[in-house]
Amino acid sequence: MKRIIVIIIAVWLAIPTTAQVRGHIQIPNLNGFVTLKCDFHMHTVFSDGNVWPTVRVAEAYREGLDAISITDHIEYRPHAADIKATHNRSFELAEPAAKAAGIILIKGSEITRAMPPGHHNALFLTDSEELDKPDFMDAMRAAKKQNAFLFWNHPGWDAQQPDTTLWWPEHTKLLEEGLMMGIEVVNGNEYFPEAHQWCLEKKLTMIGTSDVHAPIQTQYDFAKGEHRAMTLVFAKEGTAQGIREALDNRRTAVYNGDYLIGEEVYLKELFENALDIKMEKTSNAVRITIKNNSDLRFHLKKTQHDARLVYFRNYTIVPHGTHVITVRLQEGVMGGDMNFCVENLLVLPNQGMNYTIKI
Amino acid sequence: MKRIIVIIIAVWLAIPTTAQVRGHIQIPNLNGFVTLKCDFHMHTVFSDGNVWPTVRVAEAYREGLDAISITDHIEYRPHAADIKATHNRSFELAEPAAKAAGIILIKGSEITRAMPPGHHNALFLTDSEELDKPDFMDAMRAAKKQNAFLFWNHPGWDAQQPDTTLWWPEHTKLLEEGLMMGIEVVNGNEYFPEAHQWCLEKKLTMIGTSDVHAPIQTQYDFAKGEHRAMTLVFAKEGTAQGIREALDNRRTAVYNGDYLIGEEVYLKELFENALDIKMEKTSNAVRITIKNNSDLRFHLKKTQHDARLVYFRNYTIVPHGTHVITVRLQEGVMGGDMNFCVENLLVLPNQGMNYTIKI
Amino acid sequence: MKRIIVIIIAVWLAIPTTAQVRGHIQIPNLNGFVTLKCDFHMHTVFSDGNVWPTVRVAEAYREGLDAISITDHIEYRPHAADIKATHNRSFELAEPAAKAAGIILIKGSEITRAMPPGHHNALFLTDSEELDKPDFMDAMRAAKKQNAFLFWNHPGWDAQQPDTTLWWPEHTKLLEEGLMMGIEVVNGNEYFPEAHQWCLEKKLTMIGTSDVHAPIQTQYDFAKGEHRAMTLVFAKEGTAQGIREALDNRRTAVYNGDYLIGEEVYLKELFENALDIKMEKTSNAVRITIKNNSDLRFHLKKTQHDARLVYFRNYTIVPHGTHVITVRLQEGVMGGDMNFCVENLLVLPNQGMNYTIKI
Amino acid sequence: MKRIIVIIIAVWLAIPTTAQVRGHIQIPNLNGFVTLKCDFHMHTVFSDGNVWPTVRVAEAYREGLDAISITDHIEYRPHAADIKATHNRSFELAEPAAKAAGIILIKGSEITRAMPPGHHNALFLTDSEELDKPDFMDAMRAAKKQNAFLFWNHPGWDAQQPDTTLWWPEHTKLLEEGLMMGIEVVNGNEYFPEAHQWCLEKKLTMIGTSDVHAPIQTQYDFAKGEHRAMTLVFAKEGTAQGIREALDNRRTAVYNGDYLIGEEVYLKELFENALDIKMEKTSNAVRITIKNNSDLRFHLKKTQHDARLVYFRNYTIVPHGTHVITVRLQEGVMGGDMNFCVENLLVLPNQGMNYTIKI
Repeated sequence: MKRIIVIIIAVWLAIPTTAQVRGHIQIPNLNGFVTLKCDFHMHTVFSDGNVWPTVRVAEAYREGLDAISITDHIEYRPHAADIKATHNRSFELAEPAAKAAGIILIKGSEITRAMPPGHHNALFLTDSEELDKPDFMDAMRAAKKQNAFLFWNHPGWDAQQPDTTLWWPEHTKLLEEGLMMGIEVVNGNEYFPEAHQWCLEKKLTMIGTSDVHAPIQTQYDFAKGEHRAMTLVFAKEGTAQGIREALDNRRTAVYNGDYLIGEEVYLKELFENALDIKMEKTSNAVRITIKNNSDLRFHLKKTQHDARLVYFRNYTIVPHGTHVITVRLQEGVMGGDMNFCVENLLVLPNQGMNYTIKI
Repeated sequence: MKRIIVIIIAVWLAIPTTAQVRGHIQIPNLNGFVTLKCDFHMHTVFSDGNVWPTVRVAEAYREGLDAISITDHIEYRPHAADIKATHNRSFELAEPAAKAAGIILIKGSEITRAMPPGHHNALFLTDSEELDKPDFMDAMRAAKKQNAFLFWNHPGWDAQQPDTTLWWPEHTKLLEEGLMMGIEVVNGNEYFPEAHQWCLEKKLTMIGTSDVHAPIQTQYDFAKGEHRAMTLVFAKEGTAQGIREALDNRRTAVYNGDYLIGEEVYLKELFENALDIKMEKTSNAVRITIKNNSDLRFHLKKTQHDARLVYFRNYTIVPHGTHVITVRLQEGVMGGDMNFCVENLLVLPNQGMNYTIKI
Repeated sequence: MKRIIVIIIAVWLAIPTTAQVRGHIQIPNLNGFVTLKCDFHMHTVFSDGNVWPTVRVAEAYREGLDAISITDHIEYRPHAADIKATHNRSFELAEPAAKAAGIILIKGSEITRAMPPGHHNALFLTDSEELDKPDFMDAMRAAKKQNAFLFWNHPGWDAQQPDTTLWWPEHTKLLEEGLMMGIEVVNGNEYFPEAHQWCLEKKLTMIGTSDVHAPIQTQYDFAKGEHRAMTLVFAKEGTAQGIREALDNRRTAVYNGDYLIGEEVYLKELFENALDIKMEKTSNAVRITIKNNSDLRFHLKKTQHDARLVYFRNYTIVPHGTHVITVRLQEGVMGGDMNFCVENLLVLPNQGMNYTIKI
Repeated sequence: MKRIIVIIIAVWLAIPTTAQVRGHIQIPNLNGFVTLKCDFHMHTVFSDGNVWPTVRVAEAYREGLDAISITDHIEYRPHAADIKATHNRSFELAEPAAKAAGIILIKGSEITRAMPPGHHNALFLTDSEELDKPDFMDAMRAAKKQNAFLFWNHPGWDAQQPDTTLWWPEHTKLLEEGLMMGIEVVNGNEYFPEAHQWCLEKKLTMIGTSDVHAPIQTQYDFAKGEHRAMTLVFAKEGTAQGIREALDNRRTAVYNGDYLIGEEVYLKELFENALDIKMEKTSNAVRITIKNNSDLRFHLKKTQHDARLVYFRNYTIVPHGTHVITVRLQEGVMGGDMNFCVENLLVLPNQGMNYTIKI
């Protein structure tokens, strides 16, 4: 039977004869919540991406993500001459790989329109086909009908908002009708401080995504320690339901480069849970030993303080580093507040988090 | 006109807003020939690969290749439920990107059968559709009719030749009918010494390929200095025609890891052209300064020699390194032959190239 | 003769049996000047560093520096219990290695006092021993007597200036007496905007140094593309004399991370010489192809402009990248000014360089 | 008091303002023994190295070593013109840093003679000064008197044994007098199969060392995943005493590149403890899932086997990889032995370890 083609059964992630090495991103959990690393915006050949859906699962596995959503465009499918499929297809193809890899796969789609209102992602869909409608509001309502979680993508994308990140009347309408629950504060490598402000004001969920189209290694240089932009979800449990509940209750932060963007209550707890801090006092100095148990980096900048406490002006705590910081106590002072700003923990637009270590 | 979708025109390599950085592989030219770095075996979503054809061009550009051939399987198309296209389609889609990038794109296909006779690549095709025939020999002859260059792929692939790399009567037939001009001596990371031997005996062209299916970064770790397996083609000119003429005349070598595999006449010239060698004699020693102007590494191992010349037992010349090697001259000897084997220049199966530096 | 110890003669950089691979930093020359990459502040075991002087030469060679100065502290020698030597000794030990490696080695020392006036480097010394004097001004004058080039080190070092980078009366005195020709605008990884301002106001030479004490790989992660802080010297010739003439005439810039700090006349020419720019006009757009021939990265941010020219808000030109930027021309406009700030070319303290490409 | 020099107190590892990041090498423990990663051969400026002793501690900490010995040459001190110190001095200087870092520091020295008998290391010394004697045997006996552990260094070093790795009568004498307890089977990157054989025959302890002289990053490229050559010591406890007991009882293996060299009883247990293996049978195949929990890589090569079990010819298990290997069962066979050689676990000179997985 020579004519029978003998092909080795492809392993679950379609990378024959190659091992899968699971990645791990070490970011602490919060009190009562597990910190899930999620990317809710990415593309495949089924819209304008250029990889097969299973590649997205392999990438997530390798990088240590817990959950992803493949969000191919509904209205923009430049490969349509060659690829004939429903809007549900990229999810269907990725699903077995995600199950095998233990990655939570959330069904999503990107509703893709000119500005206003721009592009919007719908997560937790049951049937993406229903979103393929001429009128934008009809598409958004169809998603809502499936109980989707909806967020506005890249609000400051220069192709749609060339000079300023504007909030249009259409966005007010979406908000009022319950069709916008979150906004991308980060897309790719770009941070939108206006979106940060809107999330705080309008009680919207902060989202950060890669919006990756190509193989992810062309967008992030992992050998240099880079990681994709992602949403940290503080969930009661590591399931799709757990993620949904956390998104609905705005328990997220955005992780982009060295930056964490989110509400102070969460960033403060991440900072404190990441670090072990010990102090030793001598007659005229305090030696603070800080052990960072996380992959996070923290950039500290001294703020207003009692000048008799003499310490660093700027200090960087590196991932997994053990640091010894000396605070000199001058003029007989016995202690006081060591004040600094953690500049890369953004609790307000472009503004770091103030913190005090009591000496 | 809100309904009009505003999308930035994708740049030629379909990686929006990302720069293309051209790679360079520094391997010397030979006297009268330019050394082209070529990969003649790779897949896309149009067979069992998982990237869009343009990705293969972007990879080649980034890695410094001069020429590629996308060789999707004729008979094995696991994505056929979603992708409807002719066997020419992956070439058509990659061609504009290749032109923009200055990569020579050679039209190819993989004729994919059980062993014997296994898988065979056909390059320089004009219409891949003609190869889709039930009978293997008909397919091979259809390729030949288009004046294709035909070579046998991965002759020692364990899925088809589980224990031994065998030459079957079918291969004799192919050879006799002029349907096999070369063999893959290297596929992926694997070297087939039997194929090396057959190429030497039967005057076949030595080919080395990546046979990449996934995004190439999952197969080779470029941050660690790895490179894909490739064929070095010593061509009269840097064109598709130049490549064809060189393949027909067996002017190739295979580059795999630190190894170069090929006929001694070429490997010796590569070795000599890569290195600048200077000598300084003192009364009882010679100081040899070797400057390596290439990306190649050379592993030297001392062979039979006059024991009065005392020098290294093993020595590695690193890429772009400047080395100072001391040869001590004992018992009043004034010079002699410094003999060594360049262990990673394989001129015979699993056998390095002997070389002498006259002192 | 068994008692004779047989040791291979160490190669010039004291790394036995290891190749030396010369590094190259690709930064363009200026019109009439060669761009030399220099580090004028570093330590060895002869003060509080922890490597032998030859290591500093090997590091410079590997990283692609043209010139270095080993500037061991005069007054601070914590290894003195074990190491007995004059202040000239680290230079003497490094000199043969520097000659062999083709690195320009400039004799220097660091005069090391409390603030004010802090630490000061003296370059182009003939005898460092003369600087070992109780009184600070005597030490500075002794250096001046040897026609040294003198600059103030790390003016904002938090150990000496805990909260603010202050200019003290002592510095005025040094300046007035011709004992301060430059200031470190960057030391290690730290940028001092006040020093930048002082250099502009007082016509002082801008200096950037590594101030490395440990093996340099523990301070910079070269695998991640990091480089040491350095001074770019725009010299008439690649010699010690050439460097001196350029320092005296303030033809320098500081290279620190992605940043270049210097006078606009130099940074603008570096920017222009690094890039090849080509334009293609269509009816309603201009396609700008930018090829970066340097190791420099440029971060562009759009500034005030005619809103009918629609282009990026932020754009990064990567080292050796080829970029295609599209400027859309709206409302029938035929051209105009594409304005942006190159944010990492600091022509004023913390302020990037404005630039216009005429469309 | 302006004249007082203000210098920040150097942190324990003499790398001011830089964090110390502890490394971890994941190699499993054995039943009843903890696997300690040790390097017993290295140099500093106190002999012919070019770093300060504390640098060796910082390197060990960063790389994840448990124990080191600084073994400066007794007879070869090329920096003696500048450095005046006893042979105990490098230990004394490194000791506080080692305590702070939690690294076990074993006092050692290298007795450095022409061949025969070449260079020999003495560990667990109390006073290195005693080893400074004209006669080689006197030096060895002085070490023995301090109850030192003695081993022969780099027996195949080409500077001393240019063509062949010879055992001289002097070595027999040392062995008979109890003055040789081990041999370096690996030094730097070089493996000596003859030494491997001698260790097995003569019941000597196998040692692998870096013999590092320069900053370690110039010898090993950690960004490429390289590690220094080291001795794995299977100790009852993680103390100097634990190491001594294990060395005396030859419970070691050598870790060099991908290779482990040692007695089969240890290598087999390391292999088995590193891997979780699960099997799933179907009608005509077995799916073996292998999860590697270690930093070790394993290169498998199929050996003699029942041809009805069809599986890989070569297979590499990567660090922390999860692999799925399919064994096809042909002609109705229900199971059998899956035989292979783990080629990089050397249980005899240049010979891998045979292993069978029962299907």
